Amino acid sequence: MVTTRLPSAGFSITIRIAVTADASSIGRLTTCVGEAGAIVTALDVVDSDATHVIVDLTCDTADAAHADQVVKQLEDQDGVDVRKVSDRTFLLHLGGKIEVSSKVALRNRDELSRAYTPGVARVCMAIAENPADARRLTIKRNTVAVVSDGSAVLGLGNIGPAAAMPVMEGKAALFKRFGGVDAWPVVLDTQDTDEIVAIVKAIAPAYGGINLEDIAAPRCFEIEARLRELLDIPVFHDDQHGTAICVLAALTNALRVVGKRMEDVKVVVSGAGAAGTAIMKLLMRQGVGDIIAYDRKGALHRGMPGLNESMQWLADHTNKENYSGDLPGAIVGADVFIGVSAPNLLTGDDIARMADRSIVFAMANPDPEVDPREARKHAAVVATGRSDQPNQINNVLAFPGVFRGMLDVSAEEFTEEMALAAARAIADVVGEDKLNPTVIIPSVFDARVTPAVAAAIRAVVKGGQAPANPAAVPESELAQAPETTF
Amino acid sequence: MVTTRLPSAGFSITIRIAVTADASSIGRLTTCVGEAGAIVTALDVVDSDATHVIVDLTCDTADAAHADQVVKQLEDQDGVDVRKVSDRTFLLHLGGKIEVSSKVALRNRDELSRAYTPGVARVCMAIAENPADARRLTIKRNTVAVVSDGSAVLGLGNIGPAAAMPVMEGKAALFKRFGGVDAWPVVLDTQDTDEIVAIVKAIAPAYGGINLEDIAAPRCFEIEARLRELLDIPVFHDDQHGTAICVLAALTNALRVVGKRMEDVKVVVSGAGAAGTAIMKLLMRQGVGDIIAYDRKGALHRGMPGLNESMQWLADHTNKENYSGDLPGAIVGADVFIGVSAPNLLTGDDIARMADRSIVFAMANPDPEVDPREARKHAAVVATGRSDQPNQINNVLAFPGVFRGMLDVSAEEFTEEMALAAARAIADVVGEDKLNPTVIIPSVFDARVTPAVAAAIRAVVKGGQAPANPAAVPESELAQAPETTF
Repeated sequence: MVTTRLPSAGFSITIRIAVTADASSIGRLTTCVGEAGAIVTALDVVDSDATHVIVDLTCDTADAAHADQVVKQLEDQDGVDVRKVSDRTFLLHLGGKIEVSSKVALRNRDELSRAYTPGVARVCMAIAENPADARRLTIKRNTVAVVSDGSAVLGLGNIGPAAAMPVMEGKAALFKRFGGVDAWPVVLDTQDTDEIVAIVKAIAPAYGGINLEDIAAPRCFEIEARLRELLDIPVFHDDQHGTAICVLAALTNALRVVGKRMEDVKVVVSGAGAAGTAIMKLLMRQGVGDIIAYDRKGALHRGMPGLNESMQWLADHTNKENYSGDLPGAIVGADVFIGVSAPNLLTGDDIARMADRSIVFAMANPDPEVDPREARKHAAVVATGRSDQPNQINNVLAFPGVFRGMLDVSAEEFTEEMALAAARAIADVVGEDKLNPTVIIPSVFDARVTPAVAAAIRAVVKGGQAPANPAAVPESELAQAPETTF
Repeated sequence: MVTTRLPSAGFSITIRIAVTADASSIGRLTTCVGEAGAIVTALDVVDSDATHVIVDLTCDTADAAHADQVVKQLEDQDGVDVRKVSDRTFLLHLGGKIEVSSKVALRNRDELSRAYTPGVARVCMAIAENPADARRLTIKRNTVAVVSDGSAVLGLGNIGPAAAMPVMEGKAALFKRFGGVDAWPVVLDTQDTDEIVAIVKAIAPAYGGINLEDIAAPRCFEIEARLRELLDIPVFHDDQHGTAICVLAALTNALRVVGKRMEDVKVVVSGAGAAGTAIMKLLMRQGVGDIIAYDRKGALHRGMPGLNESMQWLADHTNKENYSGDLPGAIVGADVFIGVSAPNLLTGDDIARMADRSIVFAMANPDPEVDPREARKHAAVVATGRSDQPNQINNVLAFPGVFRGMLDVSAEEFTEEMALAAARAIADVVGEDKLNPTVIIPSVFDARVTPAVAAAIRAVVKGGQAPANPAAVPESELAQAPETTF
């Protein structure tokens, strides 16, 4: 089990310290911090006099309690005076993480009369006469709503719309950074399915796509299905489809590594919520025939009481042998374990009982279903959702490129065809020569990923093939360049 | 009457022309354009050979038909070949006028883990535990929704949400340019009052204020009133209150110019929709006792059938003598005419029959209730909504500063007190030494206006006095500076 969390940048603090000036004073500070289990990442002397030095010491800690403990150990040193502690994560979020920028300068009356009244009236009338012009003359061309009711935020649960904002703003920042997409957070102070559907339908005219985010299952399935019926822009629930795309990409390459085929493997999935359900459906679409799904209540099987509609569908369409035993029992002899559920459900010994050359994707965050270090002793390929372990399966690989591509071709819906193409594109970014058990999926900072995914999506819509060089300048960049006057 | 519109930058076109090269060829082009009634604003030679010159000629025209006519007259010239005509207003709107920018860099894994997972989880939990922290840790602190159902857009009428977007985007651009406020367009594909109220209530957690825009009367009154009951952030219908603030500011200074008092003047208002109603209420609050309101159906008076609730209120609370005659009759002997209605309702002769030293605000756009050139022959002070006439009454003077001030102090509601203070602040920007019949209101580009309005709003909320120097750095700029770490 993952008993101790590692220090990470998410818990980085900066400590202002006054220390008596002698040859070893700085050394004593860094030693103390290191002995407390934190990692020093920066040290700046900000002031000094004849007797004292004042330094800003920045270090990664494991969590808030650990940060407190590091500070306490510093304070306990002789000649050390802690002046102030600041949390770098909170500082980064102050005032929010996105802003609205004007693309027009509005320097003088002429610019004002073109951008606003009276000139804008003609632009309005052009759209009133030809609604398709909205994609040419408004932000609709490049803008996506990130919609959440705050009911299933990260692993934090139902924390509501206001508390969900930092995640939705972060998502919007990622959309811009990785896909050049303008995304806007739309958090809703209602968790009623009918209301959410009506609201998203009503706000849709401004947007070229809807990204549903962190909405609890099974409500999310109905909301997505109904919006797809109602709207002429794509609706994409990232927790479902973004995750499924990345898992399929990772599994495609993991199977290459171990030399097995989709058609032949036995897969056990822990977690039958939004992510798990979408993963299983996409794997089935890709040819996986043998899947057992686990929920909190156990293996989903026919004859099980009290299942909601989507779980009943899974019970009916997976679990060939209608197995109803426990999870450790199910993975005996399985080729693939995929976890999108809860921490520490399995031990290294459980993994040892899987089939030869087994694959483990333990993606519960922050603590996986099985300690990846234990899993790696027995499985051939191990992936997690963590950035401090090899093979991080991260939705950032999928959603920016998926929406980039859909916006570029004014797609009216998101399809399973697109999901398969996007997964293939992500998998293909890892060249045969780079592929190995610790590199089955590209880094989120690999600049080739988004253009490749976007090109694959565009190819699906256009009905043709993906371009030979998917990393070439995407059409989106051309489409966004200011049109020349002539 | 305003029979010919003047050329304006809102109808600026650029024409690419190939012309035979001789000493007078360029001169012939500019002469031709001038004779066609357009105004040349730029001329660039883009290419030439032994026999021809290719030029880009940019000129302001009066409207689309006039632009066509200018091009036609050029084409009729010998040796002139028009290659392409482009409309500079449409070019400015291509792809929309605003974008979402990230305030965090996301250069590497550390930044990603602070801005998004896992670091963001702590920020979410801080807000879940203390909801007031949303104003500190999310965009709520500086962000306003610009909400419209597209039912009364500019003078264009009920053109719907998609066609309203260019105006709402423009409004968002103005909010940033003039007030440093992040504003986001929320156009709604419904014109049902209950639905609009429910939607705005649901999306409110992300915002620090709601700006209602271009929603038809009388629906707008109910929507605003109900939202004010429901929400803990200010709700401000700009068509009502922005206009009323600017009119009160202009009237305050116009009365200074003519030496009359609010308490003594007789005012006739043409237009009893959103703007007219709000103007009259604010003037009454400021001490004006004698007002007659006109709607399409005539003077609002007691005993008039078929009035909606807000018009009935006006009929009951204005029109002391219960006058029911026509508009030209009503303004005989009146001190002030305020028009927010329709073009060409009055003639210069009508204005001549007003009281001595009369004031005329003819704000119908683009063509005022009376030709301002005719009005100026008889009235002491004339103002319009047009940028090509003196004394432009423009809401840009009010809304950026009003919201800037309300956001700075986390105001929970917009009040009549604030409207009065904002009007006073705008009026006071025009110093006694600058005041004259053609300068009763500052230019929208006067950098002192927004800080002065914001300071006045903050002073109302704080219950104290406006600072001595309202043009000093507003608190908002300090509040938005990145907090120092220590």
